[in-house]
Amino acid sequence: MVTLFSRRTVLAAMLAAITLASAVAEIRADPAGPLPSWNDGPTKTSIIDFVTKVTKEGGPDYVAPAERIATFDNDGTLWVEQPIYTQFAFAIDRVRAMANKHPEWKTQEPFESILNDDLKGLAASGDKGMVEIVAATHSGMSTTDFNKEVKDWFAVAKHPRFKVLYTDLVYQPMLELLDYLRANGFKTFIVSGGGVEFMRTFADRTYGIPPEQVIGSAGVTKFEMWDASPVLIKMPKVLFVDDGPGKPEGIDHFIGRRPIFAFGNSDGDKEMLEWTAAGDGVRFMGLVLHTDPEREYAYGPADGLPDSKVGTFSQALMDEAKGKGWSIADIKKDWKTIFPPAKAAQ
Amino acid sequence: MVTLFSRRTVLAAMLAAITLASAVAEIRADPAGPLPSWNDGPTKTSIIDFVTKVTKEGGPDYVAPAERIATFDNDGTLWVEQPIYTQFAFAIDRVRAMANKHPEWKTQEPFESILNDDLKGLAASGDKGMVEIVAATHSGMSTTDFNKEVKDWFAVAKHPRFKVLYTDLVYQPMLELLDYLRANGFKTFIVSGGGVEFMRTFADRTYGIPPEQVIGSAGVTKFEMWDASPVLIKMPKVLFVDDGPGKPEGIDHFIGRRPIFAFGNSDGDKEMLEWTAAGDGVRFMGLVLHTDPEREYAYGPADGLPDSKVGTFSQALMDEAKGKGWSIADIKKDWKTIFPPAKAAQ
Repeated sequence: MVTLFSRRTVLAAMLAAITLASAVAEIRADPAGPLPSWNDGPTKTSIIDFVTKVTKEGGPDYVAPAERIATFDNDGTLWVEQPIYTQFAFAIDRVRAMANKHPEWKTQEPFESILNDDLKGLAASGDKGMVEIVAATHSGMSTTDFNKEVKDWFAVAKHPRFKVLYTDLVYQPMLELLDYLRANGFKTFIVSGGGVEFMRTFADRTYGIPPEQVIGSAGVTKFEMWDASPVLIKMPKVLFVDDGPGKPEGIDHFIGRRPIFAFGNSDGDKEMLEWTAAGDGVRFMGLVLHTDPEREYAYGPADGLPDSKVGTFSQALMDEAKGKGWSIADIKKDWKTIFPPAKAAQ
Repeated sequence: MVTLFSRRTVLAAMLAAITLASAVAEIRADPAGPLPSWNDGPTKTSIIDFVTKVTKEGGPDYVAPAERIATFDNDGTLWVEQPIYTQFAFAIDRVRAMANKHPEWKTQEPFESILNDDLKGLAASGDKGMVEIVAATHSGMSTTDFNKEVKDWFAVAKHPRFKVLYTDLVYQPMLELLDYLRANGFKTFIVSGGGVEFMRTFADRTYGIPPEQVIGSAGVTKFEMWDASPVLIKMPKVLFVDDGPGKPEGIDHFIGRRPIFAFGNSDGDKEMLEWTAAGDGVRFMGLVLHTDPEREYAYGPADGLPDSKVGTFSQALMDEAKGKGWSIADIKKDWKTIFPPAKAAQ
């Protein structure tokens, strides 16, 4: 009987311990529930409903953890993309830093405009000029040297309006969304038109997304031996453009499975959302709409917002989103705060 | 006092439960230690020593789990690659299956040789013929349809010598090595010259490596709308060849961090091992050497083994490996068993 009693005691104590552990876990979870920086409303509800459905074991919409793939655009979805893409700000600063080694740039567009701080002249050089600037600043060095240049730049470069580091301009509601998904067994990926190496320098510490889960546009690299040491040299040749139809192509190429959750903010995300939507079972497709010129920016031109060449959200995309029941995260309405509290030094 | 007693009982019971759990875990671990299918010797020792060093918290060689990246070649490293690469066997079978839709193949090499079972004629068509066969069988369909073709083939196709499914011809010692690394916090990747989509159809269930951790050669895919449904079409155009110098390039492109552990078996793995070796801290580089014609195959031509066009392991690679202290897994000497026991129906 002593033995039996001991067993019972052990079992009772183990149960007590389990109950205690559950209670502690509940206390540790945010008392306000998930997504505290999101205002209550249909968008927040649609996210929580979706996650609840796909994680309910035995439920009709249950998805095994391995298949819980969530993909996020970066510029304008996870952080600020105005007035110009951060990577383009980096490229412009690199042109300035490299100018003494390129005397020919003084009389050669688009470099001349940059060196003269002539942003109108730079804009006039158009896409061709942008490609030349990226080629000049993103190739001809080893991947190791490039990564160092990017990291050094992020440590000091400030956003022209908010006067803080670019990595401080990530969206707090989206950080919470990434955390919430991961806490529910999702694997989170970035799928961006931005350069993959550029993003990998900060994605892990900024978003908790490791390098191998960052997908982006990429140039060709070439393996070479320098003084008997192997290096990868960045070549001035595009391997892959991860934008528009390139997003589902990149997802297939890198991940090899279809996401069940995707979030973007512009016409370049349309195909990623269509590809996500076309899979079996329940799906979540979301778009950030920039509606808040005071706290961030307002641009579309969807819904009568000002037009923008950066992060264009067309009326056609809005019509498709509404027609198909995709969720819209309207910054002004849906986001209680925009930037992480300690860093929102506007 | 009752309360105090209860607390004590709870604590004692919790300790008992923890002790019990530890005992169960110990019993579950293989009593023979890790890598039971590996014979004792310098290669097994070098693996265990390396893993012990990089996982010892506070030790001089400790590596954080996130940086524990291990990359494996596939053909000849994780499974049999003789007498021809499995993917090429698939392509040949596809030519036969597709022949009725291609009457022109009856008089067109290299297809004519395949349809006449003329392997000598097929061999004479060389690399050019192989490229034509792969292009004809690996493009022009959606990725979904291609995946189904591959899966259907793997369900029935048998290896010509061993008369078992190709996925039964994986190496038991390497399965144990993958498990051992993962149990020690490593993230395991395949980095193979084989087609990425082909490998992803079986890598998860066969090796426990999910699609997003499989890197391989890839063709261009194109996003299209078919009847208002998005599809990815496989185009007859190479995007990326993940072999030789393409392996470190692919590792950088997909993973974005340098492995600390890499295993290959042929000249095509040289650059991956050099790239792995060139990082800071301790590193593990290994090569499988096929030395066992009775139980598997014997080929090199390193160390006087028979020459082979498939999976060539040259004397130059062997000299480099010995000079740099890379580990050699000599199948005859180092592997107690080769195939998973239940399936080794030789």
